[in-house]
Amino acid sequence: MKILNTKSFSVQGFKAWGIHSGIKQDGKKDLALIHSDRESSLAGVFTRNRVKAAPVLLDMVRIKSGKGQAIVANSGCANACTGKRGLANARTMADITARELGIRPDAVYVASTGVIGPLLPMPKIATGVSMAAGLLSATGWEQAAEAIMTTDMYPKLAAVREEIGGKTVTVAGIAKGSGMIHPDLATMLCFVVTDALISPPTLKKALLASVEGSFNSITVDGETSTNDAILCMANGAAGNKKLAPGGKDLKKFQACLDAVTRTLATQVVRDGEGATKFVEITVKGTKSPKEAKHAAMAVAQSTLVKTALFGEDANWGRIMAVLGRSGVDMDEARTDIFIGKAKIVEKGLASGKAADREAAAALKHRDVQITVDLHKGKSGATVWTCDLSCEYVKINAAYRS
Amino acid sequence: MKILNTKSFSVQGFKAWGIHSGIKQDGKKDLALIHSDRESSLAGVFTRNRVKAAPVLLDMVRIKSGKGQAIVANSGCANACTGKRGLANARTMADITARELGIRPDAVYVASTGVIGPLLPMPKIATGVSMAAGLLSATGWEQAAEAIMTTDMYPKLAAVREEIGGKTVTVAGIAKGSGMIHPDLATMLCFVVTDALISPPTLKKALLASVEGSFNSITVDGETSTNDAILCMANGAAGNKKLAPGGKDLKKFQACLDAVTRTLATQVVRDGEGATKFVEITVKGTKSPKEAKHAAMAVAQSTLVKTALFGEDANWGRIMAVLGRSGVDMDEARTDIFIGKAKIVEKGLASGKAADREAAAALKHRDVQITVDLHKGKSGATVWTCDLSCEYVKINAAYRS
Repeated sequence: MKILNTKSFSVQGFKAWGIHSGIKQDGKKDLALIHSDRESSLAGVFTRNRVKAAPVLLDMVRIKSGKGQAIVANSGCANACTGKRGLANARTMADITARELGIRPDAVYVASTGVIGPLLPMPKIATGVSMAAGLLSATGWEQAAEAIMTTDMYPKLAAVREEIGGKTVTVAGIAKGSGMIHPDLATMLCFVVTDALISPPTLKKALLASVEGSFNSITVDGETSTNDAILCMANGAAGNKKLAPGGKDLKKFQACLDAVTRTLATQVVRDGEGATKFVEITVKGTKSPKEAKHAAMAVAQSTLVKTALFGEDANWGRIMAVLGRSGVDMDEARTDIFIGKAKIVEKGLASGKAADREAAAALKHRDVQITVDLHKGKSGATVWTCDLSCEYVKINAAYRS
Repeated sequence: MKILNTKSFSVQGFKAWGIHSGIKQDGKKDLALIHSDRESSLAGVFTRNRVKAAPVLLDMVRIKSGKGQAIVANSGCANACTGKRGLANARTMADITARELGIRPDAVYVASTGVIGPLLPMPKIATGVSMAAGLLSATGWEQAAEAIMTTDMYPKLAAVREEIGGKTVTVAGIAKGSGMIHPDLATMLCFVVTDALISPPTLKKALLASVEGSFNSITVDGETSTNDAILCMANGAAGNKKLAPGGKDLKKFQACLDAVTRTLATQVVRDGEGATKFVEITVKGTKSPKEAKHAAMAVAQSTLVKTALFGEDANWGRIMAVLGRSGVDMDEARTDIFIGKAKIVEKGLASGKAADREAAAALKHRDVQITVDLHKGKSGATVWTCDLSCEYVKINAAYRS
């Protein structure tokens, strides 16, 4: 598998672009378009929040077909909690896009991110879609990625290439964070495109598996948004033999897809609002992977653990306290905790000054690993999070102003 | 019911005091003693964290007797995750106290709060208990309250007096917060004393009911500590006829107990780490009180809602998003949201600029009310929380340093 330069890659049959349409006040890009030259298999994963934004409601109906050809997305306005007018606006946004691209309206998927409540400024959307359609480019991915940013500090892209069944297949994606990040998804948009030929059901299965180990294994602040959506389009332009379940070609494709979703998911965490640390938390020694993930996620969500990480303080007592309240089957007297390679807790007790010093040194790095071994079973899971800094509070105290 | 001055109250048959024994480095009080002149009914509620501190493990055994005569508590060291030595130390702490007071060791209850991991400095504890025992005073409650503080900004006390069955009964208590505050309890210690005559089972029932609407209805940061404990001692010195289930005297007593626990619980929230707002969140229109409390607590725990409150931003979209992910039975299109008296959301949609202005004005006060009406049923619940400020992050980033 070859990792591509995110500045200049292309995916056969796809074009993308992003522009400033005027939704955002600050002149930054706010409208992205992705277009395939042919109808594609399309799979998606959406927020499990009971309050779903209008574009999510629209996409959830359209995706039943398993097909699609374009994605239009805006930032600066979530089009959530906007009632019937919001739903009509999402539909109109798709209609405008279909007209500009000369495709069926049903083949257009819509995504929005930004403040909840306000209605979309439809005249701006119409002008913006027209502008973006005119600028679509095979290498316009960075522009598209910039146009879906909200509080993100940088655009998020990933692209890999692999020989599959004698053909060159590319899998690439863009994503945005960076608050409200938590499984099941986040205020998180992610669009993955590939030129692989794959049926809608097989694509859906591959995407679900990929999301479990990537976007559903990260948390920034424990919030699940109304707008979360991951869409994956596969247009078959690579000309490969259709990827079949159980085959080694599908396995190769899955590895590519996993590389892209994991890269994007970890980028979302690295760029978590106010983050100064990227933290990998592994819980092992549980009876099931699910239990391990639940415990790891409890640690990853703890505000006290996250503030200690921000303070570069090896306060393992807080980790132990979270494990204890998480509901995981554990026994304090069997629990080991590592920070980096330092075994700071052995069988429930502090290891001593030397381990403390080693852990303190590990915490000075931007990337930090926390490992917990509960010694109760043979399963484990890894999740990713960031620290909780003053900057997070400042960003979110002033978000709408 | 008369509310007493917390500077000078007394409770018949009880004495208390707090001193600096040397556990804390900064010279502040760190050891508290409460003593009744006779054996008392004693009830308690303890952390549900699977990792329990040594003093909690000790108390949970002793409380089976329903009896007790003294409480010894220290701050500056949690005696948690300290294994067998920790448990031996907790027992020794009780033994020393029993010897100083001339009572049975089994009648002494122990509580600790502070950093998890280190062992108690037993020589300091021994000297401290001896000092405190020599200074015990009928009006020493403020000193005791100061000695259990950790990151608390001020000591927390409450005391009320009521005529019950022709006798004067006093109910009083002290508590400490102020991080790791979440049901089921928190790094929360609370000691309630009363001179009422009441049997252990009746006292236990009264305490559990009281805690549900007070300490189990608050959250600061969603954390549950290893050391949480509420102990309630009733020594019968008031000479009242024993309070019997179903009687109006018990009802009067329950009202006093509720007043004390609710006052202490709300003080804990007001003094939440870094708090600049005291926030009362009511969810109504649910099918059960339990569901209402669950939804209210989800809003109270949301870092995005809490940072918006810190920023005095009426960002109701975040409240709606939390309700949606909370699992409560709700329908966006039936949901009303009030900030103060401003109906900012009506049937799921923004009410408009006038309500926004009114809500913005309400958010400028220190005390803020958020009310959600889901219009799904006739139940409701109220919980209390604080905002999430930069100061919270600073306090917890530097807690051990």
